Parts: sequence; C-alpha cells; structure tokens
Amino acid sequence: MKLVTFQCRGHRSIGKVEGQQIVDLPASDRTLPNTMLALLQGGPALLDRAREIRVADAVTYPLADVSLDAPVPNPSKFLAIGMNYRRHVEEAKAAGLQVPDSQVWFNKQVSCVNGPFDPVHMPKVSDKLDYEAELGVVIGRRCRHVSEADAASVIAGYVVCNDVSVRDWQMRSPTMMLGKSFNTHGPFGPWLVTPDEIADPHALQMRMLINGECRQEVSTGEMIFNVWQQIAYLSTVMTLEPGDVIATGTPSGVGAAHKPPRFLNVGDVMRVEIDGLGHIENVVVAEPF
Amino acid sequence: MKLVTFQCRGHRSIGKVEGQQIVDLPASDRTLPNTMLALLQGGPALLDRAREIRVADAVTYPLADVSLDAPVPNPSKFLAIGMNYRRHVEEAKAAGLQVPDSQVWFNKQVSCVNGPFDPVHMPKVSDKLDYEAELGVVIGRRCRHVSEADAASVIAGYVVCNDVSVRDWQMRSPTMMLGKSFNTHGPFGPWLVTPDEIADPHALQMRMLINGECRQEVSTGEMIFNVWQQIAYLSTVMTLEPGDVIATGTPSGVGAAHKPPRFLNVGDVMRVEIDGLGHIENVVVAEPF
Repeated sequence: MKLVTFQCRGHRSIGKVEGQQIVDLPASDRTLPNTMLALLQGGPALLDRAREIRVADAVTYPLADVSLDAPVPNPSKFLAIGMNYRRHVEEAKAAGLQVPDSQVWFNKQVSCVNGPFDPVHMPKVSDKLDYEAELGVVIGRRCRHVSEADAASVIAGYVVCNDVSVRDWQMRSPTMMLGKSFNTHGPFGPWLVTPDEIADPHALQMRMLINGECRQEVSTGEMIFNVWQQIAYLSTVMTLEPGDVIATGTPSGVGAAHKPPRFLNVGDVMRVEIDGLGHIENVVVAEPF
Repeated sequence: MKLVTFQCRGHRSIGKVEGQQIVDLPASDRTLPNTMLALLQGGPALLDRAREIRVADAVTYPLADVSLDAPVPNPSKFLAIGMNYRRHVEEAKAAGLQVPDSQVWFNKQVSCVNGPFDPVHMPKVSDKLDYEAELGVVIGRRCRHVSEADAASVIAGYVVCNDVSVRDWQMRSPTMMLGKSFNTHGPFGPWLVTPDEIADPHALQMRMLINGECRQEVSTGEMIFNVWQQIAYLSTVMTLEPGDVIATGTPSGVGAAHKPPRFLNVGDVMRVEIDGLGHIENVVVAEPF
C-alpha cells in the first residue's frame, strides 16, 4: 500500500494510491482517521481496513488533481544518521569531519519537514546549500529495546528523502544540527510504501539528479549500518513512536565533495529516485522573507 | 503566573499555582483548553483569561495532592546549547570536546521529557550518568527571524531544567545527541513562570545539589550567549513554536569534570534550584526493563 497525506479542493486528508487515483480513506470509511499519525497509531487493524477499501466503492481523486504533503507532516522525531556509506565517509573525512566507530546520529528539526514536490529555500545567510539522497524509514509501532531481529516488525514503511544541508552552518558546530534544520530542508515522500511492497530495503537502487544530471547513485545495500542495526541502536536510548522518521544516510557525490564544490543555486531542481518507492522533486527558491 | 500540567485523582489538566493551591484552569473556566500547548497557542488572550480567575471562584486542589508533570509534556522541539558558561567551557576542553566560536546547539529528543519530581533512569548500557543544571526557556509565539531586541516578546516563560547526560554515549559521536536523549533524561518544571514574575532572566542564581551537596552554582548572568542571542540565532534557521523548550546551558561542576569523575549512582538525588523559579528533584533509579 502507498499511503499519502494530500490536499485537494481545500481539504486535507490521508489516502492510498491506486494507479492514477487516490482513495480518500476517511471519506471512504468513516471509521478511519484523517491524519497519518492517527492511522499509524491505530496499528494493523486500521491499516487492514484501509487496505480492504475497494476503489469501485471509494471516494477518489485523480492523482494529478491533488497536492501531496509529506506523508507524515508532523512526526515527533526526525532522526538522521551521518556517514553511513563507505565512499561518503571518505569524502567527509577529506572535508575535515570526524569519523567515529559507532553510529553518528543527529537531528533534523521537525519544523523542517517539507512536501515531496514543494520548493526548498536558499537561506539568506548562506550560499552553501547542498543535497543528500536518502532512504527514509517511518516507524509504525511504539517501541523500545528492539533487537535487530525484531526491527522489521516496528517499521510502517519507507519513503524517499532529501537531507538538504547548509554546509557552513553544519560545520560551525560538530553537532551538525542547525545546518540540517533550516525550514523546508526536510522534504520526503511521495508516499509511505508499506513493507509488503519492499522485499528488501537493503537492495534498492537510489539516485540524486540535479537538473537531470546524476550526482549520487548507490544501492542501499552499501549502508555501513543497516536499517535493523539503526533501529536497535536508537531504541537502546529512546522510545520510538509511530510516525517517527529515520533518514538512513547518504552515499558519496554530495555537492560539497566535488572539487571545486558544486553547491545549489536558486532554480536548481533536485530529484531523488528510489526504485519501488517513487521520486521526490524540489526546486530551490530564494527564502521568501 | 506559575502554570502547571498536573494529574489529580486520575485526571490530567493544566492549572496555575496560587500559594499552596492549584487552580484547575479548564474546570474553572470552560473556555480554557486542557493542555499547555493549546493554552500557549491561544496567546495573550487565553493567558489573560487564566490570570483573571479568582481563587475564591475556582476549582482548586491542594498542591500537596497533585502530581506535577513537565509543564509542557509534549513540546515539538527540545533544543539545548552546549558550552555556554566560561568555566564549563574550560572543563569541557579538558575533557577533549571541541569548542567552536559560535553557538553549539544539539537536541534532547522530545521522548526524554520527564516530570519535575519523577525518577531518572540509570541506563543499563552505561555507568556514566551525569547532571547539568540549566535555565529553560519556553517559547510562547510561533516565530522566525526574531531580532535580539524582540526576543523577549516570544517567550512564554521560564523553567528549571536538568540536562541529564550519559557521557560515554555523548562522546561516541561529536553530535552529542544520543547521550542527551535517554528516556526520562529531560526533567523540567516545576512550573512555567511567566515573564512578568522574572525581572531579568540573566540575574538568577542557579544551583545543583547532589544528595544535598552543592556541585554547581552560578548566576545566569554568566552565560556566554544570552537568551536573546540564542533565540535570534535559532530563529535564523527555523520556526520556533509555542511550547518549544530551550535549555540555555550548564555551568561548571558537572560530574565528568571532577577528578576523579563523580558520576551518579542509583539512589542519588539531583535537585536543581533557580531563585524565583522553584526547584525540581529527581532520584536516580535502575532502568525498569
């Protein structure tokens, strides 16, 4: 199932994608909630009900007529792992970043969540805007102390993610956080693809195109710490909640690692594609205020 | 006004403290909401209505009969600045931390929020549990690009905060985040004190007592970056929302900086006091599962 948060004719709802149609879930089954967080909190029972709705009986909209928001517009956490692909680690070392032995976790603030096709702001305070293609994981069940063996069972699904980064602000402090958290710098989507459609999250081809030119390309199988290890490590520390988003790392080829660096400019179009998950595409615009 | 989130006889509500009584706000004025986030989102109009309730006309509980939660149990962000008192910077340098020139921001995950008098867990995976007394600021108005001159106007109030830290996990990665985010490691309270009661947030005496022994003591006036500078800097990057919590830095005297280090043990009692704001007190217990 491909789950979306969408807006159409002035109302916002959640839906599932069926071909070129979107089934409005709460409009088609009044026992279903109208936000993705509430749907995920409802667990398998609600998801099964959503799955069973037949298009012929449903309230639908043409996919072309709706505006897609981030599938989870308001997660409680937006976590991201750094330096999780070997060749990216080499380019990060060359840029002066410390590379520890254990998983490097930082945050994107939840206020930076952005839609899969919405503009991304070029900050007034920087000209070092950069892109990072990433596989995103969305948590489906409240959990703590999850073993690697059980990690798959807490996942609601997968998304395409762009960990947009402001490199000078990122490098001002070893905590990275501010340079990862500018408003609009966390686009993901286009839909949340449930695990039954993804045979193996570690065998997905992912690429980043800037104005159509391929800058990053990798198989998610090249991650240093895989998705199960990430969930086990994070949940040693904290409770993960339905809707929490985990960005699982970017491969080599970011703009900052080019010689000379190839940072983004206003008008540039970033497109991240992951086979089986679709694509997101965001244009860089000047910060509007 | 001193605003609380409390539980009493099985129900959770918000209130204001009047002497030894708590006025239940929504029970006393049905136009008031029952969560702190909703109250803050309502802005000055709702706060004025809360202020005008007279104890004689109100539904009240004895303070001794209620259990206090964190004043904002579910903020959208929990931000924290590192190395913001000069003598703490010296001890952090001695421990091997990088000290940059600009403000060093990291996060505590919102899942670590804890009540002002609730137990703090000793993680099973560490014996390097440490304390950090901090002044906390709570945002009162959705805002971006706030100047230092305007920063006071976006503040809902002040709280006493303990930035509980797991030093080995903090040091595994320069991003710090995981070591700051274990469940229960973000206690704050006991109440949100509105700015009309705090003449100057940079002239408050703050101390940390461990089992009654004073380990940290400072005036908040010794901050390197003051509260206005912190809000201006953060809001350059991101929108701040009502209820967002900002921990403004800890002074020298943390356990890790003692020679030999004085980490916490099960049974230890941490008490943070800030003049005019009250105190919070949390006992260390073994992680229960």
